[in-house]
Amino acid sequence: MLILMKQGATPEQIQAVCRRIREIGFTPHEIPGSIRTAVGITGNQGAVSPEHFQNLPGVAECVPVSRPYKLVSREVKPDPTVVDVRGAKVGDGSLSLMAGPCSVESRDQIFRTAEVVAASGAKFLRGGAFKPRTSPYAFQGLKEEGLQILEDVKRNFDLRIVTEAKDTETLEAVAAVADVLQIGARNMQNFSLLEAAGRLRKPVLLKRGISATLQELFMAAEYLLSLGNYQVMLCERGIRTFETMTRNTFDLSAVVMIKHHSHLPVIADPSHGVGIDWAVPPLARASVLAGADGIMVETHPDPSKALSDGQQSLNFDAYRTLAGELAELAAWQAARR
Amino acid sequence: MLILMKQGATPEQIQAVCRRIREIGFTPHEIPGSIRTAVGITGNQGAVSPEHFQNLPGVAECVPVSRPYKLVSREVKPDPTVVDVRGAKVGDGSLSLMAGPCSVESRDQIFRTAEVVAASGAKFLRGGAFKPRTSPYAFQGLKEEGLQILEDVKRNFDLRIVTEAKDTETLEAVAAVADVLQIGARNMQNFSLLEAAGRLRKPVLLKRGISATLQELFMAAEYLLSLGNYQVMLCERGIRTFETMTRNTFDLSAVVMIKHHSHLPVIADPSHGVGIDWAVPPLARASVLAGADGIMVETHPDPSKALSDGQQSLNFDAYRTLAGELAELAAWQAARR
Amino acid sequence: MLILMKQGATPEQIQAVCRRIREIGFTPHEIPGSIRTAVGITGNQGAVSPEHFQNLPGVAECVPVSRPYKLVSREVKPDPTVVDVRGAKVGDGSLSLMAGPCSVESRDQIFRTAEVVAASGAKFLRGGAFKPRTSPYAFQGLKEEGLQILEDVKRNFDLRIVTEAKDTETLEAVAAVADVLQIGARNMQNFSLLEAAGRLRKPVLLKRGISATLQELFMAAEYLLSLGNYQVMLCERGIRTFETMTRNTFDLSAVVMIKHHSHLPVIADPSHGVGIDWAVPPLARASVLAGADGIMVETHPDPSKALSDGQQSLNFDAYRTLAGELAELAAWQAARR
Amino acid sequence: MLILMKQGATPEQIQAVCRRIREIGFTPHEIPGSIRTAVGITGNQGAVSPEHFQNLPGVAECVPVSRPYKLVSREVKPDPTVVDVRGAKVGDGSLSLMAGPCSVESRDQIFRTAEVVAASGAKFLRGGAFKPRTSPYAFQGLKEEGLQILEDVKRNFDLRIVTEAKDTETLEAVAAVADVLQIGARNMQNFSLLEAAGRLRKPVLLKRGISATLQELFMAAEYLLSLGNYQVMLCERGIRTFETMTRNTFDLSAVVMIKHHSHLPVIADPSHGVGIDWAVPPLARASVLAGADGIMVETHPDPSKALSDGQQSLNFDAYRTLAGELAELAAWQAARR
Repeated sequence: MLILMKQGATPEQIQAVCRRIREIGFTPHEIPGSIRTAVGITGNQGAVSPEHFQNLPGVAECVPVSRPYKLVSREVKPDPTVVDVRGAKVGDGSLSLMAGPCSVESRDQIFRTAEVVAASGAKFLRGGAFKPRTSPYAFQGLKEEGLQILEDVKRNFDLRIVTEAKDTETLEAVAAVADVLQIGARNMQNFSLLEAAGRLRKPVLLKRGISATLQELFMAAEYLLSLGNYQVMLCERGIRTFETMTRNTFDLSAVVMIKHHSHLPVIADPSHGVGIDWAVPPLARASVLAGADGIMVETHPDPSKALSDGQQSLNFDAYRTLAGELAELAAWQAARR
Repeated sequence: MLILMKQGATPEQIQAVCRRIREIGFTPHEIPGSIRTAVGITGNQGAVSPEHFQNLPGVAECVPVSRPYKLVSREVKPDPTVVDVRGAKVGDGSLSLMAGPCSVESRDQIFRTAEVVAASGAKFLRGGAFKPRTSPYAFQGLKEEGLQILEDVKRNFDLRIVTEAKDTETLEAVAAVADVLQIGARNMQNFSLLEAAGRLRKPVLLKRGISATLQELFMAAEYLLSLGNYQVMLCERGIRTFETMTRNTFDLSAVVMIKHHSHLPVIADPSHGVGIDWAVPPLARASVLAGADGIMVETHPDPSKALSDGQQSLNFDAYRTLAGELAELAAWQAARR
Repeated sequence: MLILMKQGATPEQIQAVCRRIREIGFTPHEIPGSIRTAVGITGNQGAVSPEHFQNLPGVAECVPVSRPYKLVSREVKPDPTVVDVRGAKVGDGSLSLMAGPCSVESRDQIFRTAEVVAASGAKFLRGGAFKPRTSPYAFQGLKEEGLQILEDVKRNFDLRIVTEAKDTETLEAVAAVADVLQIGARNMQNFSLLEAAGRLRKPVLLKRGISATLQELFMAAEYLLSLGNYQVMLCERGIRTFETMTRNTFDLSAVVMIKHHSHLPVIADPSHGVGIDWAVPPLARASVLAGADGIMVETHPDPSKALSDGQQSLNFDAYRTLAGELAELAAWQAARR
Repeated sequence: MLILMKQGATPEQIQAVCRRIREIGFTPHEIPGSIRTAVGITGNQGAVSPEHFQNLPGVAECVPVSRPYKLVSREVKPDPTVVDVRGAKVGDGSLSLMAGPCSVESRDQIFRTAEVVAASGAKFLRGGAFKPRTSPYAFQGLKEEGLQILEDVKRNFDLRIVTEAKDTETLEAVAAVADVLQIGARNMQNFSLLEAAGRLRKPVLLKRGISATLQELFMAAEYLLSLGNYQVMLCERGIRTFETMTRNTFDLSAVVMIKHHSHLPVIADPSHGVGIDWAVPPLARASVLAGADGIMVETHPDPSKALSDGQQSLNFDAYRTLAGELAELAAWQAARR
């Protein structure tokens, strides 16, 4: 159930609706829009009767919400959400570029990369300090030392840090450095981590699980929003199918569907999607045209020596060329709207 | 095994190589390139010894071919194949637009569509007269009457006809009208139909099966090429995955992979890929940037009344807008190369 | 729509119902049950009004059928269909064993196999004379010579022949020898072949396509039944998933679901399902317990030398052991019912 | 690398090998077999030279291990692992039955179920106190109160408790009650949880992720074993495919493949695999014949009122019948070996 307030409804009227929702045992969520405010209800198992609300002053309409996700839905909030990351806006119609290596490997590697990324016009540096890995014997990241390097990048470049929080144990340490907390594909349904990140007031980049339906992705984001963190970006990074010629199957229609059904910004990650360096640029360009709010790509000073994901990382020359092309396409796309 | 001839090798030298291949029981395939000619060998189960050829005059090199597909491979023919359909070239760096309804339903429907499609600058009209359908109780197409309507379109518009050959029984009748024979996704491994189409000298649009790997698509095309029909275009039209929010999962990375591994032109069909009208334009735009040689989209005078695929067909206004955008993006893409 | 006749309805009353169905433009299908007769209606796109029938003499009830498949449904025909193949019954509660090589390779190979298969108590020999193959360069079967060998087997052994019809061109020749026409996974949606097989009055073994949903399998069978061929067995032989350790993913729940939703017998083919010889026996044993009416397994005099599918073929010792175990389990299963 | 010790090698000789492994910077794992002891090496990225070991006294052979998983592999430990859960052995050739509701809902529900489960001969009660749920608005379990109820069951019945640890925060509390810690499908690659469970010395039931390959399942188990917890059972519970008629696709071949490639016991969970109550018994029976060491099924006093998974839970009558059948089949299977 969604309570749409009239244009010009007063804060007191909105508060009265919220009180009534709490009185009947549920949780209100104020959703301010550009024209008027809506109030979502969560905590109910079944339908909530509109009778509780329709006679309250300032209430325009009571709309039943049929989908299992609510707060992430465009039905509930038609205006796109703009996530503000230290002044860099994601979801406002511009294109956000997020680039960097898979893993933080050394201060030199990160500083060289940061220089190239900042010079390309990107405002976000990606890089993992804590790495979840399929094998217990694989490189698991520089951990605290990696966070320290990222902290230093923030002091030296106009770059915001996107880095992964792989568990609740290290969440606080990661959140102290990260400007955007990445929740990885394998953690998309780690509900304890989602709850912890939902209680933080910090932008989150939530990656789609390797076999998650879009509805499941929306439900995972709902964990974050229902706990009060609305600064959420969704990320398509490839799904698992029968095809083996590519690392994953990059589902670009997901970008289109997410934009349609949700107000949250969407980031495309073709590096993980296809997993092969030379295939990344065409898919990155395509992603802009599909309507992505941002593009995340992996780049590394020497991909052949990367400790992880080298085969899908662009070298700096390829990255610079791509960044220029993406800017052109973003301008074309912006002019279209 | 691939025999690379020297630059300037004479026709007689090439013929001598072909004779030797036949003498040892296999089939030669001459593959003329822009600089020099190669000769492929098929019919062998295992490796063929280079000793048979390396001392023949005009032979530069004997290259073992490791992949199970040969004639479709860029290893064998690095130059892109350009398919010439009554003067309209597919694969030459320009963007080919193929549009029209799912099924031929009536003369009026097709002529109204043909007018819009021709005016948009497209050179190909798509539309099925014989329709393979999951249910025996569903509309199966106008059949011969549909072919007659398509024949009339050819006389009245500068449009080439792309229409499906659903079985060997009706292949001849369809081929008499079609400029491009479409082999549908469910027939991608109908080897008898492939063999019959391989023996015709007519351009073929071969659609990827709903769960075909790219290697299987290449092997299916190999049936056509090995029988002498090199005028083949491959088509990505969505694969089957666990996601149910879209009709299929449109695998745009397939476009990138096909261009890389094969010299054949590739057409993207986002209409079948995603199955929802409003999602087709962004994916069509994205397909141009991914490097597709052509875009196939469904359009219908009144999608709500279409006998098949109405939910994924664009109305004429949406189609015209899209066609204009695709032309702009094709120009951007051409300037990039 | 399904017209249920009263117990004891006369043939004349049934004919009157059929006439009425034809008068309103549709096709009647008489479905005799153990207690009473039903008449199915096909050819209608939407709902058919029960008013046409409910006052006719002998009519008990008019039942709307909600699923897209009708004639294959247990809603329509609760009694299991028993397919009679020259006296060998499939679907009567006994277990039918169908064994033999993937391909007919030579008279010696087939006769040696037939001897072992007949001695094991099996009543069906499987083996392909025409082989659809992914690669145009792979062994495509002995063709007519293979059929001749199978014809000779029929004269010398108490074995019924299960062999594949790969296209309409060779259907007649194959049907002249086959006791059971196999329609392979890649042809499950070859509707022209289904229609041709539906017009023959010959038992058909219809294999599930590699990515066919069960509903699509039912619709494919509906093509056969709607053309009057009710002697149909369905076959689970593995589906395509992300798992690569097995050739396909053997979906044993399909056996359970088919038995529940359809009256047609179901055959399990673990050889193609898993694709590894040592994994076939446990899955064959499991298939009996899941309720399969028959088990199809590949066996070969010398699997290491088989021209196709050698890695999944049992040698004769393994086959004999398995046949004995399956008989024991079939007895256990029969006692349970 | 695996160091195989000679028969009769002394403990001192084994310790000397372990010391040498530590000296070169890696971790030794003693793997005692029925005939002789092996020592595995982990922590190495690439190959380890056999020269370090082959001249040490008591060493028979140095075997390179090619697969990415080591400690879970039958190459490394040919004898099957038997997990001892307070006297109930899993993996010793007998069949272990694990039954109970999806969630602990009330003391009455659990005690009624425990009585039926214990009377059926099963030694394990399953039931979740902490429930990971796709929707933040769904029932998340009774939590601590649920654990208290399970604790009371242990005091009143000869039943071992299998219950899920959904995160590291509650792991300790769950482990205090659980006899077998279940790690659910969505947590199969929650590496922090695996590491925490690996450090506990408590039997673990590790469920295969919904889209995990068997190799990934083995790698997840490797996390547990490499930290010293060898008391691990693997569980097949259905994978995600394109088929929608069943909840998941129950991959019974996984049971066969796990038994072949690993020494760890394997449990089949057809309830989650198929998701429909009437389809569970045939698949449970089939699982015994496929070689499962145990069967996990959901049962509930009144499935129609269950707070979760009601549609796949057996009522007590159906459960009792099934338990009897499984015992018969387990006897048949044991006699076969």
